[in-house]
Amino acid sequence: VVGFDRYREDREAIAQALAERRGAVLVPAYDDPTIIAGQGTCGLEFARQLAEAGVELEALVVCCGGGGLIAGTATAFAAVSPATAVYSVEPAACDDTARSLAAGRRLANPPEARSICDALLAPEPGAVTFPINLRLLRGGLVVTDEEVRAAVRFGFETLKLVIEPGGAVALAAVLAGRLDPAVRTVGVVISGGNVDAEIFADIIGRR
Amino acid sequence: VVGFDRYREDREAIAQALAERRGAVLVPAYDDPTIIAGQGTCGLEFARQLAEAGVELEALVVCCGGGGLIAGTATAFAAVSPATAVYSVEPAACDDTARSLAAGRRLANPPEARSICDALLAPEPGAVTFPINLRLLRGGLVVTDEEVRAAVRFGFETLKLVIEPGGAVALAAVLAGRLDPAVRTVGVVISGGNVDAEIFADIIGRR
Repeated sequence: VVGFDRYREDREAIAQALAERRGAVLVPAYDDPTIIAGQGTCGLEFARQLAEAGVELEALVVCCGGGGLIAGTATAFAAVSPATAVYSVEPAACDDTARSLAAGRRLANPPEARSICDALLAPEPGAVTFPINLRLLRGGLVVTDEEVRAAVRFGFETLKLVIEPGGAVALAAVLAGRLDPAVRTVGVVISGGNVDAEIFADIIGRR
Repeated sequence: VVGFDRYREDREAIAQALAERRGAVLVPAYDDPTIIAGQGTCGLEFARQLAEAGVELEALVVCCGGGGLIAGTATAFAAVSPATAVYSVEPAACDDTARSLAAGRRLANPPEARSICDALLAPEPGAVTFPINLRLLRGGLVVTDEEVRAAVRFGFETLKLVIEPGGAVALAAVLAGRLDPAVRTVGVVISGGNVDAEIFADIIGRR
């Protein structure tokens, strides 16, 4: 494990240099067609379970950092459930995808952007992921860190799941009423439980 | 919600009096054939998933308080997977079922018995559950509270599940090596995530 300063160093550059020095293959976190396709199996699996249950979603909300998971998932839903409106969800402070979707082009987060959702701090939408998301998403939702904490607590108390903050943003959007209340059938992708014990304990202990 | 002192009052008597006063039906926690049958659907569901996966368990470990969940689950396995050895797991301080199985008759816990597994503190095996368990179980395993804490941490860190201490005893037994290492195919029933935030935070924060 090679540590780095998220706010002063570039993890992609560090990884690229390491890979070149060691002759290793760099596996990108999101901005790659095969990674997007792999992450899209989340959408295929979800759609298969929905078909078995005889349910068609009006809306689907998915967490969004670099945009790989949602690009793949939206691609799957576009094929098997095109009537479902797919929304990205981001921390309000790092809403690059929401703003980029509205603008029709890639916009970056300000360097001072901070959120407890450490999995969703990509600086801007991916070059590969964004054109897919621009074509397939209905729009971008945002949630505050306090709404994310409430969703993590909901996961603990009600779902009995350990959800990391970044994995809880889509759940947070639903709990915070970000979707039109007329939408009755909503799918929520919860992704990631990689959270430090101290952070989790702090969140579930707060009221 | 009516509070009571677990160590000085009798919850069954309190509930019975309440039910009589209000003309309500008392639903017992475990010592009732229909409750046992309902809890046994856990075994039926587990067995169906195993059949779909083409797996036969050598051993199955199940948490045990009053013995309803394991009596029902063992009844299901006796029907569909009779070669599977089913073991109860209890906190070492409240090992009434393990001792009762060994003795062939119901033995109570000492009144001073204490454990963090607050769901498993029934004073003795049930009058209805015990004869079933005596007939169907291979034996009774026990785990220490420290082993239970390690299992709850394993749930948090690895399974990403919120497991209450009493629901983690079967997992604790496997992690602590209580089963013969020659047994290669083990089923574990994890049941219950009803744990206070402070207790959970304390457990996951400890090393």
